Amino acid sequence: MNFASDNTAPASPEILAALTAASHGAVSSYGADPITARVSARLDEIFERPVTSFPVATGTAANALALATIVRPFGAVICAEEAHIATDECGAPEFYMGGAKLVTLPSPDGRITADQIDAAMARAIDGGIHHVLPEAVSITQATEWGTVYTVEQVAAVAAACKRHGLKLHMDGARFGNALAHLGCTPAALTWQAGVDVLSFGATKNGALAAEAVIFFDPALADGFERRRKRAGQLWSKMRFLSAQLDAYLEADLWRRNAAHANRMAQHLAAILRDIPGVSIIQDVQANEIFAAMPDDLIEALHADGAHFYRWIETPGTAHPIVRFVTAFSTTEADIETFRLAAQRRVRQAA
Amino acid sequence: MNFASDNTAPASPEILAALTAASHGAVSSYGADPITARVSARLDEIFERPVTSFPVATGTAANALALATIVRPFGAVICAEEAHIATDECGAPEFYMGGAKLVTLPSPDGRITADQIDAAMARAIDGGIHHVLPEAVSITQATEWGTVYTVEQVAAVAAACKRHGLKLHMDGARFGNALAHLGCTPAALTWQAGVDVLSFGATKNGALAAEAVIFFDPALADGFERRRKRAGQLWSKMRFLSAQLDAYLEADLWRRNAAHANRMAQHLAAILRDIPGVSIIQDVQANEIFAAMPDDLIEALHADGAHFYRWIETPGTAHPIVRFVTAFSTTEADIETFRLAAQRRVRQAA
Amino acid sequence: MNFASDNTAPASPEILAALTAASHGAVSSYGADPITARVSARLDEIFERPVTSFPVATGTAANALALATIVRPFGAVICAEEAHIATDECGAPEFYMGGAKLVTLPSPDGRITADQIDAAMARAIDGGIHHVLPEAVSITQATEWGTVYTVEQVAAVAAACKRHGLKLHMDGARFGNALAHLGCTPAALTWQAGVDVLSFGATKNGALAAEAVIFFDPALADGFERRRKRAGQLWSKMRFLSAQLDAYLEADLWRRNAAHANRMAQHLAAILRDIPGVSIIQDVQANEIFAAMPDDLIEALHADGAHFYRWIETPGTAHPIVRFVTAFSTTEADIETFRLAAQRRVRQAA
Amino acid sequence: MNFASDNTAPASPEILAALTAASHGAVSSYGADPITARVSARLDEIFERPVTSFPVATGTAANALALATIVRPFGAVICAEEAHIATDECGAPEFYMGGAKLVTLPSPDGRITADQIDAAMARAIDGGIHHVLPEAVSITQATEWGTVYTVEQVAAVAAACKRHGLKLHMDGARFGNALAHLGCTPAALTWQAGVDVLSFGATKNGALAAEAVIFFDPALADGFERRRKRAGQLWSKMRFLSAQLDAYLEADLWRRNAAHANRMAQHLAAILRDIPGVSIIQDVQANEIFAAMPDDLIEALHADGAHFYRWIETPGTAHPIVRFVTAFSTTEADIETFRLAAQRRVRQAA
Repeated sequence: MNFASDNTAPASPEILAALTAASHGAVSSYGADPITARVSARLDEIFERPVTSFPVATGTAANALALATIVRPFGAVICAEEAHIATDECGAPEFYMGGAKLVTLPSPDGRITADQIDAAMARAIDGGIHHVLPEAVSITQATEWGTVYTVEQVAAVAAACKRHGLKLHMDGARFGNALAHLGCTPAALTWQAGVDVLSFGATKNGALAAEAVIFFDPALADGFERRRKRAGQLWSKMRFLSAQLDAYLEADLWRRNAAHANRMAQHLAAILRDIPGVSIIQDVQANEIFAAMPDDLIEALHADGAHFYRWIETPGTAHPIVRFVTAFSTTEADIETFRLAAQRRVRQAA
Repeated sequence: MNFASDNTAPASPEILAALTAASHGAVSSYGADPITARVSARLDEIFERPVTSFPVATGTAANALALATIVRPFGAVICAEEAHIATDECGAPEFYMGGAKLVTLPSPDGRITADQIDAAMARAIDGGIHHVLPEAVSITQATEWGTVYTVEQVAAVAAACKRHGLKLHMDGARFGNALAHLGCTPAALTWQAGVDVLSFGATKNGALAAEAVIFFDPALADGFERRRKRAGQLWSKMRFLSAQLDAYLEADLWRRNAAHANRMAQHLAAILRDIPGVSIIQDVQANEIFAAMPDDLIEALHADGAHFYRWIETPGTAHPIVRFVTAFSTTEADIETFRLAAQRRVRQAA
Repeated sequence: MNFASDNTAPASPEILAALTAASHGAVSSYGADPITARVSARLDEIFERPVTSFPVATGTAANALALATIVRPFGAVICAEEAHIATDECGAPEFYMGGAKLVTLPSPDGRITADQIDAAMARAIDGGIHHVLPEAVSITQATEWGTVYTVEQVAAVAAACKRHGLKLHMDGARFGNALAHLGCTPAALTWQAGVDVLSFGATKNGALAAEAVIFFDPALADGFERRRKRAGQLWSKMRFLSAQLDAYLEADLWRRNAAHANRMAQHLAAILRDIPGVSIIQDVQANEIFAAMPDDLIEALHADGAHFYRWIETPGTAHPIVRFVTAFSTTEADIETFRLAAQRRVRQAA
Repeated sequence: MNFASDNTAPASPEILAALTAASHGAVSSYGADPITARVSARLDEIFERPVTSFPVATGTAANALALATIVRPFGAVICAEEAHIATDECGAPEFYMGGAKLVTLPSPDGRITADQIDAAMARAIDGGIHHVLPEAVSITQATEWGTVYTVEQVAAVAAACKRHGLKLHMDGARFGNALAHLGCTPAALTWQAGVDVLSFGATKNGALAAEAVIFFDPALADGFERRRKRAGQLWSKMRFLSAQLDAYLEADLWRRNAAHANRMAQHLAAILRDIPGVSIIQDVQANEIFAAMPDDLIEALHADGAHFYRWIETPGTAHPIVRFVTAFSTTEADIETFRLAAQRRVRQAA
């Protein structure tokens, strides 16, 4: 019953097996190996065009490297106030970008809009050279509130970016979950909608530690390799990073894993909706559920061994907000155990 | 017959097995897991004192994070001209340290001396505030020329550091190989000799991607955790980084692997010494061999499928310099194949 | 009738004369000259204790260097949302600090409170190592809204800083104006109240380009000299920077200049208060006036040659907000000219 | 008798007068003033083409900002081992560039050659992504050894830059002195020879604190304004920075000052050549003289009140190396006083 995060999950057996399979004989290091080449080809296929892709080990590295590549040190990135890059990466974007700032926009559901971008740019330009001038927008898909931008919403943000000469980055730590929700193609959700660079997540969805930074225009990727190297993010035994992605992409494992996690979230949400006093406060579109829950029920369920976090306090809600996250490894049994625990606690309280 | 580098090697089966074993159930992320705790305890034991240790994925990250923790942005690090941090990390130390410089000292065999440090400090102090003032020394053990500092040599460097208020960092990407050569304890070679922080390598010696930064004084490690996080070097599924180190340290795997690699280097060196026209130009003390070799023999052996690099040209040598590296995975058969190829080529040439 | 900013003003004649007087013969460069020594002694006297002071040319440099000295690259600074460091220095603090972030707090009048700091620290600590942890607070005195912290308010902020282990920086670009308003001693308003480091402004108050960074604890200033040098902020002909400060401090020029500017602001405020439809929205405590003013009156006065800025739009105000700034060089005649123009425009509109 | 440095000199009276003249009435801040516009026009005229120019206060700021604008954080700058940017700016280039490295080349007379650049690029490319890749070359004109690149030498360096896609920066802290020696036009020595960006020095040659960064291709200057602002190098009362440059350029003051300093250096050199045991070790082409001088004579002249520095020890020279610098303010009387002191000391020793 661990719903604390999708990074408390183990790794997909297929991915572990791929590591063992890859550990055979000597191969060239630093990415000049056949597995890395295969991942690159797979990503071209999945995105229906030649892409420029770079494996890295963590989502923070993927985001920070991507942003540093498209934003100059005296620039800025527009993002949601609750964006992972703004709140949960301990300043990694600022570090990698050389001090560029994040310009954060309030967002009740994690999504930002073209209008907000227009307004932020107007303010920035109004400030002249005394203010940082944004050079990129970063959106998270699925968002930190478990919601998903539609293709149209992404396209609207991208259109605002084009108007202002901004690059568009998508933090896709849960890209698979977003895709599973929308049922569209990876291409439709990214470059066809106007995304310039994607942090393509795998770690939360079955890998040990693997993401890919994907540029849809190779010219934008200029300098990325040296940035990755000097960040200490280039693995010497790169085959072991690439092998994870290779297995992740093989036979649609990534889409199956994500679809499963989303399904588990729907089951869990259905149970939560049935608990008196609990209200789900965001649309459940990916693998996260945010709910207002009475304090004593939180304590009781924690005591029952259910792991989930108290989240940021939201003024105006009667109860604390809690977050549940499902993963590829969440089982029907986990959900059922939770259901029983909740039911028992509700009966006790009645 | 791949002697190109120890990072062309696969991973130790024990380490792969540990990954699979670790992938079981949900555990807390970001290092609050039992495997990470066990690695910490193992390192305390190995170094015969409580140490403050942090797993990271790459040697470059280990070095750059260690140096950034002990050197301020306006400081500098003294190291050998051919130090990996100076030549092969694409500016990672400068990036992590926020622009601090490396002050490089010439070294024919990869080792630097207390006298050189004294002289470098005299020059720096003479320059006043217009010059960067070193705050640390970094030595590589085993060095980039395959040589090994004796315990006494490390202690002499450390004494110079103490005289000048410098911290001493040891880049131990091949620490196991150095130790196997010296036969001393890890404690004797590090904190007992005056080392403040160690990049403890595992990747080159059997891991997939794992190193540990080890501080011998916990006060020195202040801020390291946030630096690691904002560098994108903190794994969410930390168990998979720690599991590698756990297996690496278990039953002395690391020392066995290193000793094997060193032994293979000795065998290979013996063969090379017997080849007319070839001269080994550095003491073979770890798992690297540097030799002057006639150009046509290099070409011939490359054609035979022997992988090894042409190295930095050294003025005054008649032949090009080549580097051979052995690894935990180098086999007697590899060596024998090379011997036969070399013999055949020598006969042909005769 | 230029009320656009106190930096549109010229320089005090006394300060210009000091430059000419200083330009005599050869003296040691980089601060080892007698004028710099005299400024240092004067500042000790003014602050009633030995202080460690460093002249620099701009307020942005003073703030950014001060903050970089007391905050590590992975830390953060708490400040008001409208703080100059957050909005008008194009990311200078982030650049100098090596990527550390600003944590901004909303403030209707430019002042932040101990309670806000407590809350910000609670949020930061709650986020663990994924969030930046503030290491300093920066307050502006007088604030960007023309208000002034009382000594008690500074002391309350300082007490909150002490509770959380934070250093307290005061951006005193208009320190003289604040002091003139309060009538207290410089010591009372700074170190006696708990301020650790002060950006002591002179440029807006009569200098050409001169500020001093003043540390009240010499230990805190460690490394400042090299930071200043590598920032390109150390003048070779330092006498010309110091001479400005020397004349500024001589015979209380700084206090007289500031008192005059404040007085002019009061006169101007009195006139503005008498204009129908205009309302002053902040207490006028230093040399800035913020007023809501009907759009057509703004246009009319601009047409009359009165220089003043439209300011940030404040939702909920009927009219645009405008800012007037007075300076040491503002004359009674300027004020009277404005009064006549305003009267004429009011009559026209009636 | 102060020959310690040209920055121990006072300011030209014309420049001081310009400051006083500029301090009149209110003008727009941050560079939107008529004096700044006039400087810009003057520089266009002097360089015989429209240039993009930015006043800053120090030579270190000029160099560091120029380099940061043309080199990315993961790049590098090729320069001479004794270049001011490498030895005397306390890491300012590294700070401003965000960690990019300097690749230094040995140079006995301060000049570097096209061949050296070719070789440095070959080494860098050979190292692949593990090595930093230079993106610019910086040459100093006049050099740190008091020598001057001919136009042809500059053009040869520039040609090497073009071959390798490198930008060419000229540190012209003593540009006027170089020009006075060569007698060519500013255009011939810069953009016509292939220089991309010039640090145009004024401080050492009569200003209080003023330099200009001059880009010959406006596209290269992209972002400079925000870099200058966030570096705290943008003066609010910009007129006082520009007024210095304005007077400096007016009626060829800069060329007259430089020619005078060079002439004084020739006189001084003639005297030094006549002293038994003293040998001048570099061509005296600008306003610096480097000489080997017996230790006791150094001490004696210092005792006589002659200021000059002992310089970097050069192995293989019998006597210590000393440096003499003349300035616009050096008088015939200073030289004569030195001549008499030297003669007296020589007689005493005889």
